[in-house]
Amino acid sequence: MNTIGHLFKLTTFGESHGTAIGGVIDGCPSQLHLDFDFIENELLRRKTAQSPTSSQRKEPDHVEWLSGLLDGVTLGTPIAFILRNEDCKPEDYEALKDVYRPSHADFTYEKKYGLRDWRGGGRASARTTLPIVVAGAIAKQILRAQGIQIVAEVTLMGDIEQVRKEGDTVGGVVECCIKNVPAGWGEPMFGKYSAELAHAMFSLPAVKGFEIGDGFALANMKGSEANDTYINKDGQITTLTNHSGGIQGGISNGNDIVFRVAFKPIPSMAKPQQTVNRAGETCEIAIEGRHDVCVLPRAVVLVEALASMVTLDMGMMQEGRPFNWLRDLS
Amino acid sequence: MNTIGHLFKLTTFGESHGTAIGGVIDGCPSQLHLDFDFIENELLRRKTAQSPTSSQRKEPDHVEWLSGLLDGVTLGTPIAFILRNEDCKPEDYEALKDVYRPSHADFTYEKKYGLRDWRGGGRASARTTLPIVVAGAIAKQILRAQGIQIVAEVTLMGDIEQVRKEGDTVGGVVECCIKNVPAGWGEPMFGKYSAELAHAMFSLPAVKGFEIGDGFALANMKGSEANDTYINKDGQITTLTNHSGGIQGGISNGNDIVFRVAFKPIPSMAKPQQTVNRAGETCEIAIEGRHDVCVLPRAVVLVEALASMVTLDMGMMQEGRPFNWLRDLS
Amino acid sequence: MNTIGHLFKLTTFGESHGTAIGGVIDGCPSQLHLDFDFIENELLRRKTAQSPTSSQRKEPDHVEWLSGLLDGVTLGTPIAFILRNEDCKPEDYEALKDVYRPSHADFTYEKKYGLRDWRGGGRASARTTLPIVVAGAIAKQILRAQGIQIVAEVTLMGDIEQVRKEGDTVGGVVECCIKNVPAGWGEPMFGKYSAELAHAMFSLPAVKGFEIGDGFALANMKGSEANDTYINKDGQITTLTNHSGGIQGGISNGNDIVFRVAFKPIPSMAKPQQTVNRAGETCEIAIEGRHDVCVLPRAVVLVEALASMVTLDMGMMQEGRPFNWLRDLS
Amino acid sequence: MNTIGHLFKLTTFGESHGTAIGGVIDGCPSQLHLDFDFIENELLRRKTAQSPTSSQRKEPDHVEWLSGLLDGVTLGTPIAFILRNEDCKPEDYEALKDVYRPSHADFTYEKKYGLRDWRGGGRASARTTLPIVVAGAIAKQILRAQGIQIVAEVTLMGDIEQVRKEGDTVGGVVECCIKNVPAGWGEPMFGKYSAELAHAMFSLPAVKGFEIGDGFALANMKGSEANDTYINKDGQITTLTNHSGGIQGGISNGNDIVFRVAFKPIPSMAKPQQTVNRAGETCEIAIEGRHDVCVLPRAVVLVEALASMVTLDMGMMQEGRPFNWLRDLS
Repeated sequence: MNTIGHLFKLTTFGESHGTAIGGVIDGCPSQLHLDFDFIENELLRRKTAQSPTSSQRKEPDHVEWLSGLLDGVTLGTPIAFILRNEDCKPEDYEALKDVYRPSHADFTYEKKYGLRDWRGGGRASARTTLPIVVAGAIAKQILRAQGIQIVAEVTLMGDIEQVRKEGDTVGGVVECCIKNVPAGWGEPMFGKYSAELAHAMFSLPAVKGFEIGDGFALANMKGSEANDTYINKDGQITTLTNHSGGIQGGISNGNDIVFRVAFKPIPSMAKPQQTVNRAGETCEIAIEGRHDVCVLPRAVVLVEALASMVTLDMGMMQEGRPFNWLRDLS
Repeated sequence: MNTIGHLFKLTTFGESHGTAIGGVIDGCPSQLHLDFDFIENELLRRKTAQSPTSSQRKEPDHVEWLSGLLDGVTLGTPIAFILRNEDCKPEDYEALKDVYRPSHADFTYEKKYGLRDWRGGGRASARTTLPIVVAGAIAKQILRAQGIQIVAEVTLMGDIEQVRKEGDTVGGVVECCIKNVPAGWGEPMFGKYSAELAHAMFSLPAVKGFEIGDGFALANMKGSEANDTYINKDGQITTLTNHSGGIQGGISNGNDIVFRVAFKPIPSMAKPQQTVNRAGETCEIAIEGRHDVCVLPRAVVLVEALASMVTLDMGMMQEGRPFNWLRDLS
Repeated sequence: MNTIGHLFKLTTFGESHGTAIGGVIDGCPSQLHLDFDFIENELLRRKTAQSPTSSQRKEPDHVEWLSGLLDGVTLGTPIAFILRNEDCKPEDYEALKDVYRPSHADFTYEKKYGLRDWRGGGRASARTTLPIVVAGAIAKQILRAQGIQIVAEVTLMGDIEQVRKEGDTVGGVVECCIKNVPAGWGEPMFGKYSAELAHAMFSLPAVKGFEIGDGFALANMKGSEANDTYINKDGQITTLTNHSGGIQGGISNGNDIVFRVAFKPIPSMAKPQQTVNRAGETCEIAIEGRHDVCVLPRAVVLVEALASMVTLDMGMMQEGRPFNWLRDLS
Repeated sequence: MNTIGHLFKLTTFGESHGTAIGGVIDGCPSQLHLDFDFIENELLRRKTAQSPTSSQRKEPDHVEWLSGLLDGVTLGTPIAFILRNEDCKPEDYEALKDVYRPSHADFTYEKKYGLRDWRGGGRASARTTLPIVVAGAIAKQILRAQGIQIVAEVTLMGDIEQVRKEGDTVGGVVECCIKNVPAGWGEPMFGKYSAELAHAMFSLPAVKGFEIGDGFALANMKGSEANDTYINKDGQITTLTNHSGGIQGGISNGNDIVFRVAFKPIPSMAKPQQTVNRAGETCEIAIEGRHDVCVLPRAVVLVEALASMVTLDMGMMQEGRPFNWLRDLS
């Protein structure tokens, strides 16, 4: 359950304060000259310590490539990579060892596994999203070469500086647009493009909502308002409006694929909070660990990365169908 | 891609006007005395032709069990079943053979496969959700025996009678609550309970949004408002509020799991609509096929069914972990 | 675990004396005009009651197609089909209800599931291989259109008529040759063409050995005898000998793929045998049910069918690789 | 396709002369105090440079643990580990860059991927089996705690010293016995214990044959000779003989599981061999790289490792079945 994708697959591993965070990409096509600067740049977009509202943990976030490459060219074999955890301060968390931080995964992990890595959230830390950025940056450059662009932006976020002063945190919304996906990507029934996107986005920490096209607003609309009329535009069949967000029946229709992701506020905050410890005793905590005030600025590249991986996966499934090879049985 | 689930798996097949719709459940535990009346009753909840606002297609929706049972008891082998399509009127759709109905999957299926089953939506028809009801009814009765209840209801829907008179259709929202799930169900990273629910719900036709707990509203909240404080209630650790909707870090915390699903309006309507045909020519259609005015009344049981399947799957993964069997390596 | 294949997938279901045996093929390419006579003919090759040495059970073995087809053309959606069990005589097995037939799966199924379908072997019956013939016949005709031939034959089998008179049964060996597979099919590491073939063949009842190329004989050879020298034959690189059986490193090299499958004797026999019943009491049985003297004649088409399915699956994975689509990232 | 297992899963990566070889184990139970000395010892059993007949490549084969552990205890999260390639001499292989070594995977990898890592066999090197030893050593100690023993030995191998002097190589057979597996492990149809073992063994380089129980010899036997009579031994149902090798219908019957694996001779040898290069020109090579004379001594631990992984996987599937949890639906 640490793997995502069907043909372009990423398996991730690592805890926040363990030796390293990393991933294995299985199914990346061979003979690709990867753009490593682009990958490092995507990591920079996610990087911590960029502003007073971000976590003050300082990690080089340098990718060490372990396999699957020869002189920078993909071999078709698994691409493994790690990012070491160097700026570890588990002692920051020692006081929280037996305490369940509110709205964190401490309690649920302990119930699930019978123990938990208490150092900085362990496997549930936002730091475990690093491999997603790396794999997403590879997927994105493959799609870019096909003319497909994936761009996300923050569309809702409170006044973060104000929130930081209050010792509080805040949530927000990221909107993402995928342009130039050909019609016919996505699989019917349980492999819908939209379902795969939803699944991927809900894999990010703090995500609590996902909608595509007009989303929840469609629930208030009539069919005559919501339907996207097909038109012939210069010999190309397209739609006049895009309430559906580019997907019908789980399959792309050639229009922009537009979706929004809702993030809850980061649960760690300086403000004192009441909770209980393992013994069931009530206690008060003020979380001193290094954490963000809002996940949104860093979430943008994560949303793009996962959208890229899902899109490439859908594309490989569809474009790899050996239509011409197979059609004639005579 | 016509399969859902990891340990409790359903594979579905069938087109709206083909011979039969059906499914294969692989992974159902053995030695269960199934309650077949309950299954038929769940199918009744979904059944068409119950009111003037529902489709007038009349199908017996009788389940024929093909395998996996001996005297009504599960064998542990695959349970296959079919529901025949008997009230087929493909001639109703003959006029639409070369026309792309707005906001339907006609165009996208044709782009994907190079051809499409034009008879009543083919594989994209809502009729293909029947096997979900059957598998969900089995999952639900297994969970019920464990004290887990799953109940959905319509929380938003327009005035349907009015809409029907206008020859229009309308969308809405279904809310679902899963009670008594033990803490610790759900897998981290890419197998989160919330992600699996989102994926499952987006597998339903017409779904365009999914949120869990306070969902999109959390994007506007501060951490101090959104966090769920842990408390000790009669020796049991629980939370004071439930903004998270019962899931933290992708894993259940023992609280009610609450989520909402947004459905767009049914795209088929009596009202004339403009569209294009395969030749790219503009034309006007008024859809005469038998269809609902609103998908919501019938969607309730579908949401419950998928929630049941996902929950049982999460439960089998967690409760089947051979903790005691394996723990001691000495 | 009732599914085989990665892109061309077959899920099977059914017990020997249940309502029906059947399968669901997911991943079959669309727009194929299937040759149904060919499929029926492959079923005839497997059919029972052809000679005094075969089981006397008389089944029409007629395929009922349920989905995935429109006017005989594949839609790209799941192809479901059933074959009804009509000549059922569970009463033949009533006496064996509480007895573990030697070298049958009665005891192991009961230990696994806590109960078993005692009617004719239930899910462990050779009758459950029917869907393999159907799916194999579809795969075989797709491969045939690409010039790939798959032919198996019995290379070892005792004097069956003599064995029958003795009330005994006998085993044997089937050899299979796959011609004209392009070099490059098969996946490295855990998806080797040879491993997939071995896995598939061991899915057949009674299989106890599998070898490829010179197989076990290679264990007695030196490298200088066993190596296949590469040569340039009319501009085509091939090998002088084929000790490797067409596969190196798990990947096809363009030569004939040759393998052998060893079948044990059928455990059901007229001759009296000692065994124990559920109560642990010793008893004697002489199996009166309808069964073959030797599985080999009917196994030939099964070996071909599974080899076809594996080969098509490997081919779809390799030929579907979107090389040209993806290679250029500039 | 670089992943093996269903619940206890290993994904491997790495090339012979790349940065590192490694693996990710997903699904290992939590709260296990691993015996790291045992793991290192298993690696020693596989280690090179132990005798004049083994490869002279000197690698520390030290495991670096990256994740999934806290103070030596498993967390339930993915366990990632690497073994660095330090004694790399790619220059040894430079001369072979454009030459296809006979019976190696050079030609097939190049046909598959359009390029290949020519340094020491790349992904097809026997060095890539290292992660199997590590994961197998973890599985083995979990099984050992349940009383299950897995022991393999070489049962056929030529006179290796003589072969080495001739500049030649030789094959052989490894036999493996799994003791004390409870009856009921293994899944029917396409998940048979025997099929999973065959699949796993064929994942090893140089494997060309696999048989279980009396294997190919059963093809020459009659049912009356081959059947394993059930007996009641001290209140326990078992069989008098074990021709079936402990598995019937793909499921364990409680007896020893016995199987044999045939390995072909190592294709690399000092003796000059004829072959062709990429340009299709005939040439002669004498392979100077560091390689073994016979794979058998090192294969023993690999066979045990894969048998352990498969057995644990089968066990987790069966013992994890929530029988008691689920049975009562009343």
